[in-house]
Amino acid sequence: MKLLEEKVLKEGAAISENILKVDGFINHQVDPVLMKAIGEDFAAHFKDQGITKVVTIESSGIAPALMTASAMQVPLLILKKSPSKILNKNMYQTVVTSFTKGTSYELTLAGHLISEQDHVLIIDDFLANGEAATGAIRLLRKAHATIAGIGILIEKTFQPGRAKLEEQGFSVYSQVRIAKLEKDHIELLAQEESSTL
Amino acid sequence: MKLLEEKVLKEGAAISENILKVDGFINHQVDPVLMKAIGEDFAAHFKDQGITKVVTIESSGIAPALMTASAMQVPLLILKKSPSKILNKNMYQTVVTSFTKGTSYELTLAGHLISEQDHVLIIDDFLANGEAATGAIRLLRKAHATIAGIGILIEKTFQPGRAKLEEQGFSVYSQVRIAKLEKDHIELLAQEESSTL
Repeated sequence: MKLLEEKVLKEGAAISENILKVDGFINHQVDPVLMKAIGEDFAAHFKDQGITKVVTIESSGIAPALMTASAMQVPLLILKKSPSKILNKNMYQTVVTSFTKGTSYELTLAGHLISEQDHVLIIDDFLANGEAATGAIRLLRKAHATIAGIGILIEKTFQPGRAKLEEQGFSVYSQVRIAKLEKDHIELLAQEESSTL
Repeated sequence: MKLLEEKVLKEGAAISENILKVDGFINHQVDPVLMKAIGEDFAAHFKDQGITKVVTIESSGIAPALMTASAMQVPLLILKKSPSKILNKNMYQTVVTSFTKGTSYELTLAGHLISEQDHVLIIDDFLANGEAATGAIRLLRKAHATIAGIGILIEKTFQPGRAKLEEQGFSVYSQVRIAKLEKDHIELLAQEESSTL
């Protein structure tokens, strides 16, 4: 997606070979105009697939996922990172371990908000090792929901997330594909490769 | 706000005298059409005040705050609940203790995203004891930003949040004002009182 690619190149900051800082427009400060365009792009890519809900993981996926749900005119489901006091009955849960952050958390989904009739689109900000997306899929399968695909804002193509998801037969669409990061340098995947998605 | 009042009465669930469950349309599943209307209502209420940014606290404030920022055509700032590895220099921090949840967390804001030129609108889903809003205000003041007001989706008027904020001179606008909760019963503040805001 041209608009997001330009934004990443112009305003993103490569901190190291693994860390891309996008806190000025995605994670910490959010550009609503960009988010609306991101949502419309996902809605266009995954249109006519009978998607009933958009699903994301709190919290940096919420903004793009809400704009996607808004463009698709379906509800948004936010998978919660820890069990709340209030949500405790009829709950699906799974543990997700993030190698990137060196932490584990419990992902939860209230059973009454999902059913085997649901065909969902998963939206997340980053795809690196694929732990979050894999956790979301595990949780959705417990509820017997089906998965239409996975939409990602920024994919680190040098990490194994996409391969893991595609091996399981999932369709992955990333708006920006990073080929390489090094301090102060961001390299996108060449357009030809990118467009063969 | 009529639409949200109706939704709270129809789909909200009073669990106890203190707990109102709105996980079907605000917290866990999000209705994008309702969120858009909520954002437009806040934008209309706080219009022509020179607001430069909308500020919220992750994560349940993100959806309504994004739609407010989108309607106002200004950026959204998400105050983070724990310091990330990436965001570590030039950072404002404050500890917030939630009596409701019995937990404490560190609220953080990157210094380069805020300045004394900013005049911000704080949006959050609930107002009860006012700890979250007070923490956000403390953080924004450290950055010498000014505060245009506080927009709340659902206020528990039987808890001291509003009084605490108004004592400090802040303008508080709540879309729904709950007079009383008890198991399976939700009572709104009468329209006359509500409209004197």
